[in-house]
Amino acid sequence: MEQVIELSYALDTFYFLVMGAFVMWMAAGFAMLEAGLVRAKNTAEILTKNIGLFSIACIMYMLVGYNIMYPGDGVSSFWPGISFLLGEDNTVESVVAGGDDAPYYSNLSDFFFQVVFVATAMSIVSGAVAERMKLWSFFLFAVIFTGFIYPIEGYWKWGGGFLDQAGFLDFAGSGIVHMAGAAAALAGVLLLGSRKGKYTADGSVNAIPGANLPLATLGTFILWMGWFGFNGGSELKVSDVGEANAVAMIFVNTNTAAAGGVVAALITARLMFGKADLTMGLNGALAGLVAITAEPLTPTPLLATMIGAIGGILVVFSIVFMDKIKIDDPVGAISVHGVVGIWGLLAVTLSNPDASFGAQIYGIVVIFAWTFIASLIIWGVIKAIIGIRVSEEEEYSGTDLAECGLEAYPEFSKES
Amino acid sequence: MEQVIELSYALDTFYFLVMGAFVMWMAAGFAMLEAGLVRAKNTAEILTKNIGLFSIACIMYMLVGYNIMYPGDGVSSFWPGISFLLGEDNTVESVVAGGDDAPYYSNLSDFFFQVVFVATAMSIVSGAVAERMKLWSFFLFAVIFTGFIYPIEGYWKWGGGFLDQAGFLDFAGSGIVHMAGAAAALAGVLLLGSRKGKYTADGSVNAIPGANLPLATLGTFILWMGWFGFNGGSELKVSDVGEANAVAMIFVNTNTAAAGGVVAALITARLMFGKADLTMGLNGALAGLVAITAEPLTPTPLLATMIGAIGGILVVFSIVFMDKIKIDDPVGAISVHGVVGIWGLLAVTLSNPDASFGAQIYGIVVIFAWTFIASLIIWGVIKAIIGIRVSEEEEYSGTDLAECGLEAYPEFSKES
Amino acid sequence: MEQVIELSYALDTFYFLVMGAFVMWMAAGFAMLEAGLVRAKNTAEILTKNIGLFSIACIMYMLVGYNIMYPGDGVSSFWPGISFLLGEDNTVESVVAGGDDAPYYSNLSDFFFQVVFVATAMSIVSGAVAERMKLWSFFLFAVIFTGFIYPIEGYWKWGGGFLDQAGFLDFAGSGIVHMAGAAAALAGVLLLGSRKGKYTADGSVNAIPGANLPLATLGTFILWMGWFGFNGGSELKVSDVGEANAVAMIFVNTNTAAAGGVVAALITARLMFGKADLTMGLNGALAGLVAITAEPLTPTPLLATMIGAIGGILVVFSIVFMDKIKIDDPVGAISVHGVVGIWGLLAVTLSNPDASFGAQIYGIVVIFAWTFIASLIIWGVIKAIIGIRVSEEEEYSGTDLAECGLEAYPEFSKES
Repeated sequence: MEQVIELSYALDTFYFLVMGAFVMWMAAGFAMLEAGLVRAKNTAEILTKNIGLFSIACIMYMLVGYNIMYPGDGVSSFWPGISFLLGEDNTVESVVAGGDDAPYYSNLSDFFFQVVFVATAMSIVSGAVAERMKLWSFFLFAVIFTGFIYPIEGYWKWGGGFLDQAGFLDFAGSGIVHMAGAAAALAGVLLLGSRKGKYTADGSVNAIPGANLPLATLGTFILWMGWFGFNGGSELKVSDVGEANAVAMIFVNTNTAAAGGVVAALITARLMFGKADLTMGLNGALAGLVAITAEPLTPTPLLATMIGAIGGILVVFSIVFMDKIKIDDPVGAISVHGVVGIWGLLAVTLSNPDASFGAQIYGIVVIFAWTFIASLIIWGVIKAIIGIRVSEEEEYSGTDLAECGLEAYPEFSKES
Repeated sequence: MEQVIELSYALDTFYFLVMGAFVMWMAAGFAMLEAGLVRAKNTAEILTKNIGLFSIACIMYMLVGYNIMYPGDGVSSFWPGISFLLGEDNTVESVVAGGDDAPYYSNLSDFFFQVVFVATAMSIVSGAVAERMKLWSFFLFAVIFTGFIYPIEGYWKWGGGFLDQAGFLDFAGSGIVHMAGAAAALAGVLLLGSRKGKYTADGSVNAIPGANLPLATLGTFILWMGWFGFNGGSELKVSDVGEANAVAMIFVNTNTAAAGGVVAALITARLMFGKADLTMGLNGALAGLVAITAEPLTPTPLLATMIGAIGGILVVFSIVFMDKIKIDDPVGAISVHGVVGIWGLLAVTLSNPDASFGAQIYGIVVIFAWTFIASLIIWGVIKAIIGIRVSEEEEYSGTDLAECGLEAYPEFSKES
Repeated sequence: MEQVIELSYALDTFYFLVMGAFVMWMAAGFAMLEAGLVRAKNTAEILTKNIGLFSIACIMYMLVGYNIMYPGDGVSSFWPGISFLLGEDNTVESVVAGGDDAPYYSNLSDFFFQVVFVATAMSIVSGAVAERMKLWSFFLFAVIFTGFIYPIEGYWKWGGGFLDQAGFLDFAGSGIVHMAGAAAALAGVLLLGSRKGKYTADGSVNAIPGANLPLATLGTFILWMGWFGFNGGSELKVSDVGEANAVAMIFVNTNTAAAGGVVAALITARLMFGKADLTMGLNGALAGLVAITAEPLTPTPLLATMIGAIGGILVVFSIVFMDKIKIDDPVGAISVHGVVGIWGLLAVTLSNPDASFGAQIYGIVVIFAWTFIASLIIWGVIKAIIGIRVSEEEEYSGTDLAECGLEAYPEFSKES
């Protein structure tokens, strides 16, 4: 019997680790997506931002963030939630004791799963501020966001804080991860301003095409695959019939929501622009994924497809609208993760009987307000002290040379 | 004891989901492979096709296809095989009852695994018709192929239909998935004709090089990795010693067949052309994988290597031959998946004592005839009504601008 | 009870296979990394090398290498260690018998995990000799290295040979895999000489920028992900509480060491060059991963981050130093895998009480001496017989045309 409990613990831990590795893989997805959607001259810099922010997120969340988000029982001690950082994990005795309080997976596997989530949230930010933000100012913001801003709102829900008690539901983080990332991005974009030449004095909007759409497509497929870990791992357990069925349902719904998002976005783009705009198809996939993230378990697959499809339609309109109000987001991150994140949170009420519209609105307002205002303050302080925007000259010649001292495609690029 | 049965169910379900995620990842592989092998001006369009067809496949198979392919017992009810789409899955009671009839993995995980297979079959088609087919005509075909044509022949074997009863063997789908995709592609290519400038009046063949071979190589590696799920998951069970050994054997054989295919194709290319043609090496890998797919379990690893190597040799000759008979297949999909798929089905007889040459031939003829003729009819109807080929002008300027309204590499491409 | 043992066997086997698939994925990582860091005109050739060497490694290790490295008990018989190549694996009886001698995972899954390791070692070599080595000479070396050189030193430690008995510790292969690959590469580079134009007569060093940094970044992320399998699978077992905790710790430490490497390398580059050199950030990630590979289990995550960070600093200095002494390594492989591999082996003593500085030095000297000298002899013999370097003309026009007869980016590249 004890061997069965141990085996069950091992399966749940292994499941957590595999799902976590999938989520880590999303970092590559964001890097490729963003690198494909910026101009060649800003590609190396956005890649540097992506691998740098992932690393910063991992370290800051380990040192500070995890402990804020999951303080554990022993809040009186220093760093109470991260005793395992000193090498501790569950003892065999505590596991085989059984009962409701017994741990059923490794604490370290939980940390691993959580740490790749904070990196995901931060990845959302880099795309929106692309092509004009100073590299090290961005890294400084990443330190604060991943160490403090995200963990605090994460605690409110997933750590058992007041949003959790208020009945706010967010299964895998349409709000806590995606909308929060978008809110931080929006705050940065507002302080940063648009790229030179994006909006002209006569009110017209210049499309600035991305340099490498195969990369952007690859990034989208990577994110799609990684999302199986993101949502599938958020069930937190797989080792009995009910849980295994739940994880399977989440995989199916995650996949079909993305599919619905693609189809809806391509059709919407075809109707609006006369063309099947690939970038809208990609954003449709991501929108479908963001939309289902708040509740991938309770919808039927048919409903999940609808939820994703509505996300796919929304994202096209939102991207057009953002340009109307001159919010310059080179990769559409604010629309994909913010606007559609809100839709996802509201859509929880369509299938989960425990959800209430009021609690969802409450959570949306609180998380948005917190991350937006806190981010605005941090961006503002960084702007005041070291600046957040590269010089006009650097923007013209490209952030790659200015910040990284090299070019992403030294032999290809002829113009910019 | 019940807990052990539940745990076993959880492991098999988790295995299915992970293997299914690997297969989903193959969609990215086909997208990158095809995007790398077409010219720059047709890259965004082929990417749009790939993400679009995957999405269409997921939705159509959910709505219609799965139910046709696996009708289940309750054929009198509407959509009998997809009751889980309404949120149903196996009850704990039915699982722990045990016995031969008890379900041992989640139905939803089975659906997930199956749905990524149909997407794979459809992915094969897009490469062969690249650079000249209308986007929306292709999508329309995808609706029919994934909703009806594939599920019907899939039913004949995997759903327990007449091919299964006739002793036809196809472990993971050299025929049902790969040759079927190739037959649908061949039908499309025949109606579509070759790309402008590919075959000249004086009988010479112009090589039209792919624009981005690193992408094509990445796609091949992705497919190689994803194939562990494709073949490994097709064992359908991992949770006892015999099954675990079987899955391990399948992984080993899948890997070594691909390796054999690469080595054989590179040597063949070196002998035939004097150069180690990378694209032949890539096709050799895929040929090895296709060849072993019909029977990855019973061959020894040495035999598996040989089966893959013969696939790798075959594919080089086949690609050369297709150009001789003016079948213009930009990525070699018909050779890789069709010709080598047939080889794989015949090779089952080399190691599986239950296989008969006659039954394999029977299956090949039936599946090919069905998918080819049904596809020819559908392509023909689409051609008659809305056309399947872009205009000459659009083909010259590229399908990216014509169909998607953007360029894949706006800053790089200088010629086409 | 027997069912529990079987289930445990299945979980460990499945874990091995998934981790092995992650390691296989590293082949794509090396291919992308190297393809991104060479010039456009040598890209197709390095891709051909990568897919070819992986295939050769898989076949040679199956035919010869595995048997040398793990000779098994029955050394009197021909190919004693690879009886499973004839289709044999553990019987149910031997497994459920239990006890310390009972096998707890499929032999074939072990082979699969091992075979992707040798391919990793070989992948390290290709980058260092890029842009000037003959393709088929490289393949010939790959045959010898993967069939003999690597398995022999592998046997000394992991096969239970004299280094193992001497107390040398190398958990997942900082030395056996990474430093060994780097030593083979160094031997090749010394006989091969530097690329034309890299070092000028007046003593200056010309930077030769890589053509496609998004690819290099993708490759790094792929390697990062694959490393979870590399280190995580090297625990060899996951199916009880202690083992599951251990695997979780390894995942956390592997991830945080990479993160530490990135941050340290970017800061070091910023301080040394004034710019956040992306390629240094990428090499920092890999350095962190190599550094933690010798002992990813016993350090606390904080210590693991430090070990990775020191690796990240070391690699920047080492890359600069290699250019000082005119060792031309286009991708920095000798620094990343060799210099940092040594650091990783020494760092074992920081946390593992069983480690001794003397035994680590002993292992480093023995493995380095063996792989370096054996490789030097083999490279020398190949050089004497068929040559190892392409002609000056071929080097100027690019190895792609010379060796593969095609271009990687026929529409993009304008200069070289």
